[in-house]
Amino acid sequence: MKIVCFGEIMLRLSPPNYERFVQANKFNVVYGGGEANVSVSLANYNLPVSFVTKLPDNLIGQAALNDLRKFGVDTSFIPRGGKRLGIYYLEKGFSQRPSKVVYDRAYSSVSESRVEDFDFDKIFEGATWFHFTGISPALGNNVAEVVKKACKTAKKLGVKISCDLNYRKNLWSREEAQNCMTELMEYVDVVIANEEDADMVFGIKADKSDIEKGVLEHSAYEDVAKKLKDKFNFEKVAITLRTSISACDNNWAALLYNGDEFYLSKEYKMHIVDRVGGGDSFGAGLIYGILNGFSDKDTIEYAAAASCLKHSIEGDYNQVSVDEVKALMAGDSTGRVKR
Amino acid sequence: MKIVCFGEIMLRLSPPNYERFVQANKFNVVYGGGEANVSVSLANYNLPVSFVTKLPDNLIGQAALNDLRKFGVDTSFIPRGGKRLGIYYLEKGFSQRPSKVVYDRAYSSVSESRVEDFDFDKIFEGATWFHFTGISPALGNNVAEVVKKACKTAKKLGVKISCDLNYRKNLWSREEAQNCMTELMEYVDVVIANEEDADMVFGIKADKSDIEKGVLEHSAYEDVAKKLKDKFNFEKVAITLRTSISACDNNWAALLYNGDEFYLSKEYKMHIVDRVGGGDSFGAGLIYGILNGFSDKDTIEYAAAASCLKHSIEGDYNQVSVDEVKALMAGDSTGRVKR
Amino acid sequence: MKIVCFGEIMLRLSPPNYERFVQANKFNVVYGGGEANVSVSLANYNLPVSFVTKLPDNLIGQAALNDLRKFGVDTSFIPRGGKRLGIYYLEKGFSQRPSKVVYDRAYSSVSESRVEDFDFDKIFEGATWFHFTGISPALGNNVAEVVKKACKTAKKLGVKISCDLNYRKNLWSREEAQNCMTELMEYVDVVIANEEDADMVFGIKADKSDIEKGVLEHSAYEDVAKKLKDKFNFEKVAITLRTSISACDNNWAALLYNGDEFYLSKEYKMHIVDRVGGGDSFGAGLIYGILNGFSDKDTIEYAAAASCLKHSIEGDYNQVSVDEVKALMAGDSTGRVKR
Amino acid sequence: MKIVCFGEIMLRLSPPNYERFVQANKFNVVYGGGEANVSVSLANYNLPVSFVTKLPDNLIGQAALNDLRKFGVDTSFIPRGGKRLGIYYLEKGFSQRPSKVVYDRAYSSVSESRVEDFDFDKIFEGATWFHFTGISPALGNNVAEVVKKACKTAKKLGVKISCDLNYRKNLWSREEAQNCMTELMEYVDVVIANEEDADMVFGIKADKSDIEKGVLEHSAYEDVAKKLKDKFNFEKVAITLRTSISACDNNWAALLYNGDEFYLSKEYKMHIVDRVGGGDSFGAGLIYGILNGFSDKDTIEYAAAASCLKHSIEGDYNQVSVDEVKALMAGDSTGRVKR
Amino acid sequence: MKIVCFGEIMLRLSPPNYERFVQANKFNVVYGGGEANVSVSLANYNLPVSFVTKLPDNLIGQAALNDLRKFGVDTSFIPRGGKRLGIYYLEKGFSQRPSKVVYDRAYSSVSESRVEDFDFDKIFEGATWFHFTGISPALGNNVAEVVKKACKTAKKLGVKISCDLNYRKNLWSREEAQNCMTELMEYVDVVIANEEDADMVFGIKADKSDIEKGVLEHSAYEDVAKKLKDKFNFEKVAITLRTSISACDNNWAALLYNGDEFYLSKEYKMHIVDRVGGGDSFGAGLIYGILNGFSDKDTIEYAAAASCLKHSIEGDYNQVSVDEVKALMAGDSTGRVKR
Amino acid sequence: MKIVCFGEIMLRLSPPNYERFVQANKFNVVYGGGEANVSVSLANYNLPVSFVTKLPDNLIGQAALNDLRKFGVDTSFIPRGGKRLGIYYLEKGFSQRPSKVVYDRAYSSVSESRVEDFDFDKIFEGATWFHFTGISPALGNNVAEVVKKACKTAKKLGVKISCDLNYRKNLWSREEAQNCMTELMEYVDVVIANEEDADMVFGIKADKSDIEKGVLEHSAYEDVAKKLKDKFNFEKVAITLRTSISACDNNWAALLYNGDEFYLSKEYKMHIVDRVGGGDSFGAGLIYGILNGFSDKDTIEYAAAASCLKHSIEGDYNQVSVDEVKALMAGDSTGRVKR
Repeated sequence: MKIVCFGEIMLRLSPPNYERFVQANKFNVVYGGGEANVSVSLANYNLPVSFVTKLPDNLIGQAALNDLRKFGVDTSFIPRGGKRLGIYYLEKGFSQRPSKVVYDRAYSSVSESRVEDFDFDKIFEGATWFHFTGISPALGNNVAEVVKKACKTAKKLGVKISCDLNYRKNLWSREEAQNCMTELMEYVDVVIANEEDADMVFGIKADKSDIEKGVLEHSAYEDVAKKLKDKFNFEKVAITLRTSISACDNNWAALLYNGDEFYLSKEYKMHIVDRVGGGDSFGAGLIYGILNGFSDKDTIEYAAAASCLKHSIEGDYNQVSVDEVKALMAGDSTGRVKR
Repeated sequence: MKIVCFGEIMLRLSPPNYERFVQANKFNVVYGGGEANVSVSLANYNLPVSFVTKLPDNLIGQAALNDLRKFGVDTSFIPRGGKRLGIYYLEKGFSQRPSKVVYDRAYSSVSESRVEDFDFDKIFEGATWFHFTGISPALGNNVAEVVKKACKTAKKLGVKISCDLNYRKNLWSREEAQNCMTELMEYVDVVIANEEDADMVFGIKADKSDIEKGVLEHSAYEDVAKKLKDKFNFEKVAITLRTSISACDNNWAALLYNGDEFYLSKEYKMHIVDRVGGGDSFGAGLIYGILNGFSDKDTIEYAAAASCLKHSIEGDYNQVSVDEVKALMAGDSTGRVKR
Repeated sequence: MKIVCFGEIMLRLSPPNYERFVQANKFNVVYGGGEANVSVSLANYNLPVSFVTKLPDNLIGQAALNDLRKFGVDTSFIPRGGKRLGIYYLEKGFSQRPSKVVYDRAYSSVSESRVEDFDFDKIFEGATWFHFTGISPALGNNVAEVVKKACKTAKKLGVKISCDLNYRKNLWSREEAQNCMTELMEYVDVVIANEEDADMVFGIKADKSDIEKGVLEHSAYEDVAKKLKDKFNFEKVAITLRTSISACDNNWAALLYNGDEFYLSKEYKMHIVDRVGGGDSFGAGLIYGILNGFSDKDTIEYAAAASCLKHSIEGDYNQVSVDEVKALMAGDSTGRVKR
Repeated sequence: MKIVCFGEIMLRLSPPNYERFVQANKFNVVYGGGEANVSVSLANYNLPVSFVTKLPDNLIGQAALNDLRKFGVDTSFIPRGGKRLGIYYLEKGFSQRPSKVVYDRAYSSVSESRVEDFDFDKIFEGATWFHFTGISPALGNNVAEVVKKACKTAKKLGVKISCDLNYRKNLWSREEAQNCMTELMEYVDVVIANEEDADMVFGIKADKSDIEKGVLEHSAYEDVAKKLKDKFNFEKVAITLRTSISACDNNWAALLYNGDEFYLSKEYKMHIVDRVGGGDSFGAGLIYGILNGFSDKDTIEYAAAASCLKHSIEGDYNQVSVDEVKALMAGDSTGRVKR
Repeated sequence: MKIVCFGEIMLRLSPPNYERFVQANKFNVVYGGGEANVSVSLANYNLPVSFVTKLPDNLIGQAALNDLRKFGVDTSFIPRGGKRLGIYYLEKGFSQRPSKVVYDRAYSSVSESRVEDFDFDKIFEGATWFHFTGISPALGNNVAEVVKKACKTAKKLGVKISCDLNYRKNLWSREEAQNCMTELMEYVDVVIANEEDADMVFGIKADKSDIEKGVLEHSAYEDVAKKLKDKFNFEKVAITLRTSISACDNNWAALLYNGDEFYLSKEYKMHIVDRVGGGDSFGAGLIYGILNGFSDKDTIEYAAAASCLKHSIEGDYNQVSVDEVKALMAGDSTGRVKR
Repeated sequence: MKIVCFGEIMLRLSPPNYERFVQANKFNVVYGGGEANVSVSLANYNLPVSFVTKLPDNLIGQAALNDLRKFGVDTSFIPRGGKRLGIYYLEKGFSQRPSKVVYDRAYSSVSESRVEDFDFDKIFEGATWFHFTGISPALGNNVAEVVKKACKTAKKLGVKISCDLNYRKNLWSREEAQNCMTELMEYVDVVIANEEDADMVFGIKADKSDIEKGVLEHSAYEDVAKKLKDKFNFEKVAITLRTSISACDNNWAALLYNGDEFYLSKEYKMHIVDRVGGGDSFGAGLIYGILNGFSDKDTIEYAAAASCLKHSIEGDYNQVSVDEVKALMAGDSTGRVKR
């Protein structure tokens, strides 16, 4: 068993202690990005994972690579070269003050990578799963080509494919997204989306929900899941359901649809340490459940519990073990001290 | 357009991470004080502001001055001299444990400043607004004389005047306050008070409220506003309404009375990063609204939203932009990440 | 008046800012342990306290000793020697993620201490109260012997004895605990327990409560208190009642039974800075109330308020004054700034 | 009197405490860059300075701007727009381990700025001095055009011009540098260079020196100065003379040539806190001396003393006052406490 | 045996990591002051010491008191009251940049203390030594009276008295110092001075030395010692000899004169972590040697070695043990790791 | 090619910023230990390395393991179990104040490991080199047996063996060391020792040197090398030569003897960030040189340069690349900025 993820890892710079950018004379340094986050989370479940990206051949690129290795992620298929490591600046919000993300990811090594940089036949040797997100093709046509090549090779080798739609309006328009993602969806077995993605990328809406007002009608999302399934014939459609009460408090649940049944997970009322990577940790939980043959019900509960825990952890990565996720799944949500 | 604020800026020393004073081997260093806070907040709205005070001619005074300049506040009317920069020690409370303030502000340069230190005719050149608080006259008769001189000059030059009553029981008795403030009120166009101030300074009470019990009858404060207006013939009376649930959680709203109508703002349920300067950020919001010709309703909503955001920001200063305040006014209070 | 506490003080190492162990490149350093915590808390109430333990004769042992002295705790009866200072690693939980404690306390100087290390006749000179917890005898038979010797000497000299049951499953089995603690209970005047202790050590249960589910039927604990009293003929039985909503939010109350009446304290809804030492701060509050002749009602309210405040304070020790506890007892729980 | 500097300000990220990049989970954040450093240094001497650059219209650009304002630098001629703030990563060396700089400055707002972004007639209103460095034209032809326009306008308005050659091999080749800089030199009155610049840009060498071996024959640099003067007919040529003993210890002196006489400053044996910006602080000292009518001897001593002090100060900026520089010039180099 | 010290303890605030005041957003917090430093140093040698001062009855005063207790210093004779704790701001210098001290000590509780605040008969019960410095009488006539009263009482009870001249030009003029100190010298048995004190206070100079140039002729100081002895008939005169090479590097030695012989200690070439309190640690070493019956040679070597070590320790206090001082006295100055 | 190292990795706790233990409220956390340090250093040279130890199956053990993985060290042969991770507390010295190490390593998982825990046939598959130090057998007879087993297996499989004598007086007596190490030496091809080791373990002395006085006669060590070679018939003997000037300044060189010739490296005058692991980084450099077929001269220069750089790096590990070592070997020791 081996999982391959392709995508970007960035340097994340964030002021400590809820300071604003303008107040900070120190930035906390972590590394992360959609698919890197999925990789690390899976590695923390003791699954063999290979993360594929392109990193600059300088000391900052090396620091990102070492950070991945720390968790046991295989980094041997990462070519080195290009101009720079992408950056995102994160100012954490609090209460009514929203978090701010300033992206500085253009011209990164991976965003300028090309099909020739990767030998996917070799990369997928022994692999059983491939994961990517909608961020990668949005980085540029060249990267979209890389993703397509990866998908084709995976398909050819019988590797299952999951995709988190992850629409990023700063990277491409809805039209560009729709064109590109529609083409990629033909390879995808399991799709992951949040409340906005399906609408933004494919124009599929949860009619009755009004996300900004903090009200979510979970049932409405069954409709979205069904439409996605119908349109692309996915094996499974998973949707995360976030209700933002404030920058510190969110409710969190998720839905899985297998074409027959809808499974709605437990809803968690969360205080938040760091919500970035919440969706990615959900994706990793989902893949873990499927690869371990969990029932669909258990799979969605595992993924929801895993990603609930992520919100209590600093940085992009979900740093929890299988045992910890299972304890929460089993209902131990009281936060009592484990001695 | 130019706004002038006169008052004290202090060095604020506070233990990090909710430590008690006795635990701390580091203090976080910020600078602040009622009128300085108003100045910085207005400068962050891109208004031209001049802060007037007196600072010691040493490196600590310079640090305070540089901090003001950082936000674009004009500091060219600050004479240098006197003995020291005033200090306040702040121990942040948490949950049932209240915050503690230990003042060490006696003998500060501004508290020993005199009328001769300031050339108000020059200071108010081009000014449209003057703001002071009840803290300044409480620093001593000499400072009360300075404030009186400022008010007279402002009035003479057609500058509008706002005053935040800001009663400080450590600085003067209720009698002293009443005598001095009554005299100053004749110059004031817009007055700002919180639940306690009107009572402490002028004996005007919100009968039905029981602040300590965390219960506020907002309507009761309409009465207070009306009595203030009737007594001093202010153009506008603004009252902030804080309900303290714990040191971490407050509800916050405000009331504006223009002699005809009462406007009650939306109430915000806030988690708190730093509640010091909350009232000052309200004052700045109010002045912003009035100077920009907002309706009274919009003015009180802007001021309430601005000061709600302040509670999420470390330090005395409100470090938010007009756009951020307007987004919250417009109802975006869910703290969702802005990418 | 003098209080003597015997037990262990450990080095506590914890990652800052809710980091997980694997993320930390710094550990916050404090010192603490059940009986040391009671000692410091009592010293902070300006009571004369002597803490008795054994510390290694190295610089780490010295650091622990200096830390006790800082609060005015008498350390003159602490022999120096043995191998090491015990350690516990604490990873603070958040929301649904529980706190983790990794103990590394075996082979500590006190856990290998023997009766000959302590001259209890001298130690108890002028003493009026002796406090120990169930952790000490659990450290080993040798320490159980020390505790027994201390109890006997105290009893002989007319010193009142309190014991916090504090069952630690990592240190001994329920059978070992029951055997040893039953023998020690004959000396004890005041016993303190939490929801689990009475069950774990003596098999006395609160039938109707389901702690893990976060539901506490307070009345059920009256039963537990009564059974404890009946079995060992204590003067007073005190029980802390914690409802864990999440790692950040707990409800907290306590019960005192004097053989005649049950006194249930006010319940506090707490946000939590550090819940370790919560029970110990309760014990110290209880002892303070009894030694100062408070009524039973006031005693349990004082103990509950004191330990409520502890949850807002970093580290094992409760660093609050009598005035602060009394202010909370008197109903000031809104966390408003004290200037 | 007003000084105008044009150039780039970057975000500088550096691991604390001599950590390597790969070890850091925090970066210290300062802002700096050749001409920004000169600006701040001059502002710290209480001279009116305007720094001209282009900054992105995001929160990171704002933080850089606020940092300039803190020191009283005028920022009113900085257009906002473009893609990003340039970055440089600095890993501080120690002893035999050299400092490492990783540049990530491509595509910055200023590097993509154009002549139309700046109204130099307005910018130079009231100006007496213009300073730029060889870094700016190296950013791209468009920026070289901006610099040329600035030089022409300055010349037209009778503003004196200084240039620090500052050759950066990562930005352009020696040929490109020579072509562009030769053209610009016709406008320059005062030129500043270090041991390498004259060689790299104009092929003018100090034959006998062997910089890498830590040996400097100061006299050899008189030759370089003379050749520069002869070639471009500068009013003054200033050369900094650094002897690197280790990353912690440097010797530092400077040379001024006015066409008639050579003035060699005192040599300082320095321990180093931060050597970045050493040359820029020299330039600022030189400009200060000239603008204040110092003799050439005093000018070079002032510039050398100022830049010696810079090496003891964290960050790019030289944060010292005129009094402090003069005290060192006067021979007080023993570092005794000033009370 | 008991030592009593009277004087001031202040809050010391200093920017971390060689930052300048204007750069700091954190201050390191320690407590210290001439006589407090002597007290803590002696307590670290396991001698019983009582420090006498007056502290404000607030949380900052309590923090200072707890800090003294940490080292085992007796604080039971410290009255609480008055206005404030004195402060000094310390900016640490580096290389050619000198350290800066900004005092903010006026109106402190001890500087406004009076004879009635202290019961010296009780304080000196069981005491064998009394130490004060020239700083205390300089705080004001009232404090000079307190010191005089202490000296008289000590003399009456046969307690030996040491005084460190410690001239502070910010506190009094040379004339004031001479008048007051001359009167106090009649009680003093052992006097301590540095290169400047004897000159500043009594006009006694080391003719040949030129301190600012970093050159010390040790023999010249024998003359100073002799003149001091001759004038006031001290038992012993001790003089510290500091050669400032830079803010990071000093040479350090000391001289003892007993009326018969001069003993010059070894000279130490020191790198410096914190030079504040260097003289105080010398005083404590001297007292330790005398009280333990060391020979004069050993006494001066102990004092010199102790104070050499102080320069490697952060904060005002000398935190070294007798064993550590003796190891250095014995010649182990290579800094090799002690495992 | 693969290198195997067997030994202990410990948690290292050290106060930041030259604080003493008693001052610290934070400890810096790194992981290290003789053989782990060699492993990481080799991994940083991009060699495949497997580190073999035993780690407790808890979160602290996991953190140590992740730290190794970060550098690409293979950890797949590390069994999990046993009681605890060993600790050492490091207080960094400065100038005349020596560093202090307090060991708390007894009962660690590896110190209680047994031959059955390791499958050396599998571990050495594909290996070309095995490295251990004298610390491991000193942990106990059981560990000595493990090392013996490892040596035998390595020998059997044709794997070269290096050993750093590394005598630790806290772990065993000279007699125990001599007995055990003599037996192990028969397997060793390359031995590494410092000035003390050969004497302490085998009674082989450098007669003329007087280490404590900071004087090293390099030639004397040729004698030691020769005697070691003669006694055990090693292929190569390498000796590190440290001259301690102070805790901040050391001179450093090394000697290699191949039976024919002595090669003395360049001597480096070092300022020190962290001298722990200096010897280990030398060992890694030596192994690198040999494995890459360097000449003996180049090998010793590489090893000396590598370990010189280590002294500038925080933590136990040497975090430098081959290029960086080679640059220093090539004479670039001036610490000039690399851009």
